[in-house]
Amino acid sequence: METWTDQPADLYDVFARMCPSRSTLERVTGRWGSLILGALAGGPMRFNELRRRVDGISQKILAQSLQALERDGFVARNEVSTFPMHVEYSLTGSGRAVAEHLLALFAFLQAQMPAVLQAQRDYDNR
Amino acid sequence: METWTDQPADLYDVFARMCPSRSTLERVTGRWGSLILGALAGGPMRFNELRRRVDGISQKILAQSLQALERDGFVARNEVSTFPMHVEYSLTGSGRAVAEHLLALFAFLQAQMPAVLQAQRDYDNR
Repeated sequence: METWTDQPADLYDVFARMCPSRSTLERVTGRWGSLILGALAGGPMRFNELRRRVDGISQKILAQSLQALERDGFVARNEVSTFPMHVEYSLTGSGRAVAEHLLALFAFLQAQMPAVLQAQRDYDNR
Repeated sequence: METWTDQPADLYDVFARMCPSRSTLERVTGRWGSLILGALAGGPMRFNELRRRVDGISQKILAQSLQALERDGFVARNEVSTFPMHVEYSLTGSGRAVAEHLLALFAFLQAQMPAVLQAQRDYDNR
């Protein structure tokens, strides 16, 4: 069976349908993944804090997304030994690098929104 | 009715569920939007070229995505007056800025894939 696992890094290509980098891209840029990574860029957070910050996410989707991001090595799950023990989520080194790209994109889009909304009105009035 | 249209740019917040910047973010980072913008960073393309480059996209989804990206002002649709006339898609200035962020993220993720696949194996063997 062909496997991508042992390919040199420069063979990975998000444009190729079967490349595993595409599913990783989808996890970090998807509807929720990008917001979770962006939120964690502010520092470690507990589950419920994260849920409040990522406005609109369900408990189930947040749990699944965190698990997928942990599996890819972008998020670490830390048991903090206070009493009672609690769990915190934080970015790993590679998670931080991804989050920095995402935050730059968020900032650009937020600043661009007046122009985006004007473009939408122009398009709809054509 | 409350509207976001006339807010100053610094009020837009992708973390807020109802903010229009969140749906714009989803269009440019979604499963296909990010690949379409990344592909067009290489220069103007015709529909079928783009469809081949964004491996796996259907004709219907490509057409819908291009329309949404054009409506947001990131992609321009140009009728090129050759004979027979043909249509090309290209990035606008703001589309190019978004694409640059995305290409940097693609490059990071592609280079990171050996570590991601190792993290997945470690996670699965825990």
